[in-house]
Amino acid sequence: MKEFDFGIVGLGVMGRNLLLNMADHKFSVAGLDLDPEKAASLEKEASEEHTIKGTTSAEEFCGLIRKPRAIMLLVPAGKPVDSAIASLLPYLEEGDVLVDGGNSYFPDTNRRVDELAEKGIHFFGMGISGGEKGARFGPSMMPGGNAEAYERLRPIFEAVAAKVNDEPCVTYLGKGSAGNYVKMVHNGIEYAIMQLIAEVYDLLKRGYGVEDAKIQQLFEKWNNSELASFLVEITAGILKKEDEVTGKGILLNYISDAAKAKGTGKWTSQNAMDIQAPIPAINAAVEMRDISKYKEERVQASKSLKWKDVSETSEEEIFADLTDAFYFAMINIYAQGLAQLTIASKEYDYGLNLEEVAKIWRGGCIIRAACLEDFRQAYSKSPELPNLLLDETLGKALEEKQAAARKVVKTFIDKGIPASVFTSTVSYFDSYRSEILPTNLIQAQRDFFGAHKYERNDKEGIFHTEWN
Amino acid sequence: MKEFDFGIVGLGVMGRNLLLNMADHKFSVAGLDLDPEKAASLEKEASEEHTIKGTTSAEEFCGLIRKPRAIMLLVPAGKPVDSAIASLLPYLEEGDVLVDGGNSYFPDTNRRVDELAEKGIHFFGMGISGGEKGARFGPSMMPGGNAEAYERLRPIFEAVAAKVNDEPCVTYLGKGSAGNYVKMVHNGIEYAIMQLIAEVYDLLKRGYGVEDAKIQQLFEKWNNSELASFLVEITAGILKKEDEVTGKGILLNYISDAAKAKGTGKWTSQNAMDIQAPIPAINAAVEMRDISKYKEERVQASKSLKWKDVSETSEEEIFADLTDAFYFAMINIYAQGLAQLTIASKEYDYGLNLEEVAKIWRGGCIIRAACLEDFRQAYSKSPELPNLLLDETLGKALEEKQAAARKVVKTFIDKGIPASVFTSTVSYFDSYRSEILPTNLIQAQRDFFGAHKYERNDKEGIFHTEWN
Repeated sequence: MKEFDFGIVGLGVMGRNLLLNMADHKFSVAGLDLDPEKAASLEKEASEEHTIKGTTSAEEFCGLIRKPRAIMLLVPAGKPVDSAIASLLPYLEEGDVLVDGGNSYFPDTNRRVDELAEKGIHFFGMGISGGEKGARFGPSMMPGGNAEAYERLRPIFEAVAAKVNDEPCVTYLGKGSAGNYVKMVHNGIEYAIMQLIAEVYDLLKRGYGVEDAKIQQLFEKWNNSELASFLVEITAGILKKEDEVTGKGILLNYISDAAKAKGTGKWTSQNAMDIQAPIPAINAAVEMRDISKYKEERVQASKSLKWKDVSETSEEEIFADLTDAFYFAMINIYAQGLAQLTIASKEYDYGLNLEEVAKIWRGGCIIRAACLEDFRQAYSKSPELPNLLLDETLGKALEEKQAAARKVVKTFIDKGIPASVFTSTVSYFDSYRSEILPTNLIQAQRDFFGAHKYERNDKEGIFHTEWN
Repeated sequence: MKEFDFGIVGLGVMGRNLLLNMADHKFSVAGLDLDPEKAASLEKEASEEHTIKGTTSAEEFCGLIRKPRAIMLLVPAGKPVDSAIASLLPYLEEGDVLVDGGNSYFPDTNRRVDELAEKGIHFFGMGISGGEKGARFGPSMMPGGNAEAYERLRPIFEAVAAKVNDEPCVTYLGKGSAGNYVKMVHNGIEYAIMQLIAEVYDLLKRGYGVEDAKIQQLFEKWNNSELASFLVEITAGILKKEDEVTGKGILLNYISDAAKAKGTGKWTSQNAMDIQAPIPAINAAVEMRDISKYKEERVQASKSLKWKDVSETSEEEIFADLTDAFYFAMINIYAQGLAQLTIASKEYDYGLNLEEVAKIWRGGCIIRAACLEDFRQAYSKSPELPNLLLDETLGKALEEKQAAARKVVKTFIDKGIPASVFTSTVSYFDSYRSEILPTNLIQAQRDFFGAHKYERNDKEGIFHTEWN
């Protein structure tokens, strides 16, 4: 009987696409789904070179796969992951490797790693980025778990991952939930860059009345510059997609402005606060999705809280400055997210290698961008770099481009157009480069009203003062 | 045998001060502490008019108190609360009321309410603000729990609370953990206003080189204006406190700028994200405490990331504008926190009355301020007001003062001085008054790369587009 190289549980769009991707690379793959239609239709999609088989039976599925088994779950995060594990468990053996390819919350992964370790089964949490297309033709994959067990997965993952300069966008990241954590922060960065792009669009459209086609050209141009990135690229695509319903103008103008979210951005922000990793740009992006929800209140407020545009910056000037300002903000966003990873790696003992993270984000994933190669080089030069802002090359670039960023932010303010992420990057930059912050006053206040004590800057010790 | 009106468990500074406050108001109070010294010294502090008794025995303590008993715990949040409850439980009876007066995390309170309800015991979570002095001479108290059981507590709480126009700064707030939740948000607002004050201080001292005494005078002046508030008042106090160690200049200049936090601000931010309540100013304040921690990195960055002050705003101008700008930012901060309470009240079915919240925050607590009376009036006029920004009077004031706020924020940016809270209030204001936000683009991006679907603004339904 034919032994299959790999198994995939959950034959939704992501699971099916990843399975076909593996089959393209000559791996034989079994698929399991409780829905008979999905299991059956899988084989119909196969081409002649593919060796794939679908089933609805966990027992048959586990029996098909070469031992030690390598199986990936592509089911929704939360309870479905636990259910899928439970359904496989009777047929698994010591040494088998289970990979959760969903956006699981990282503490859940830690729990599952521990539970399955008792049975000798290696559990991996692996973030996958790239959407449906990425899964089919090359995603960026972020696996964490047992380093030795990864060898069972490496050939197949390296084959199916996106490639940049022939290097696969997948690598073993670290212990336990390292993979989920890295993917979580990836999504946080994604939130912030999406909001940043939205702010650029808002300033041009609402602030200057620039027509859609001209905004489209800007993003198109950016995508052929140092700002080249997937999110800029698809924004250029979105801005030229005509509306088929009305036949009038672009579809974007008909899309509701109440943004939805699935929670990974929120987790990034909430956990950053737990580990004291400052990521104001990501927090601002999460906030803006929340504010967008209060449509009725906003409509009401728009009628009473007026402001008259006092900006003196011309449209030409803003076009010139926006490019540098966007670069400045974008680098600050990545710097915050990657610094969070550095802090989290210490906090949770992940053993992350930031150069590798930058490397596998260069292709396949939603936040892929030309600048990731610069980050990779920065971490290659200084593996212990606590923050990209301290890299000499990037620091110089930011120092040069800060004038444009400041001007753009002031223009937003003069026009009365919100720019939460843009402004937060300038505040972050100025905070980070402040040798002395006014938080001494906060310490004094805390000691004044709550006797919380303080430290001095000229001698050791903990002090309390009777302020009154 | 004398029956005592009330019992307090935990005779640390807060417990002891609150006990003496109650005794001042002719209530007889028993105190329990495992530390014999604390239990014994309590009685020594009593004056002749006081009826108080300290003990180390939970059994004796519970035997002293009139039934149904009313007992307050003033022990550190977390496990100590559960331990204290467990030590009392054998001696409690149905109908007794236990009040946790610490800064407990609100889900812990919900759990305790449920556990004790099974035994017929009413559990209250009550935030207390005002620090040591407040506890002794009149705090603001925020109790939540069973409405009927509150009647057992009302006389003593109303007697000891701070008074504003003869109205006590305590009221029954709502079910379950309502009291802890309100106190949590109180602390979030406290974080944001402290950071806002620190930013004013930073702009004047670092940005303009204004001498300490002149900054002190500004806060002194503010405290005799519509900006009057406890935090402004103590800042004026702090800025004139001489350093006794060196004898040179004010103590503030010797206090370390790495700010500490005990977590309630962080909880406010994290929970706000769970219930989608946008509170960017509070988030910014939490972030700034975190950034302040990275002193070494900041010192290093200060040497490489330079900016030359390009501000053209004179010192006189900034003094003139700061007052209005501070008012603008302060109102935005309270508006965010109070809107979070409105959203949380729906989410957790607390049944909060925002007018009452504003009322009991007018005195005794750390965020007491003249503007709280304006807020009380706004909610009195419109009990369902979703956000203070929609109140006509406050809205008008903000509309007038926004020019100053915009100018001040731009000055921070020109000077290269961070103003995370200040800038976030302008962004928040501009977002809130935006009928249309650019989040339609975020929805389009999500549908482009993840097939997450979107809604249209011209017709019902959920849509997906093949963007490529």
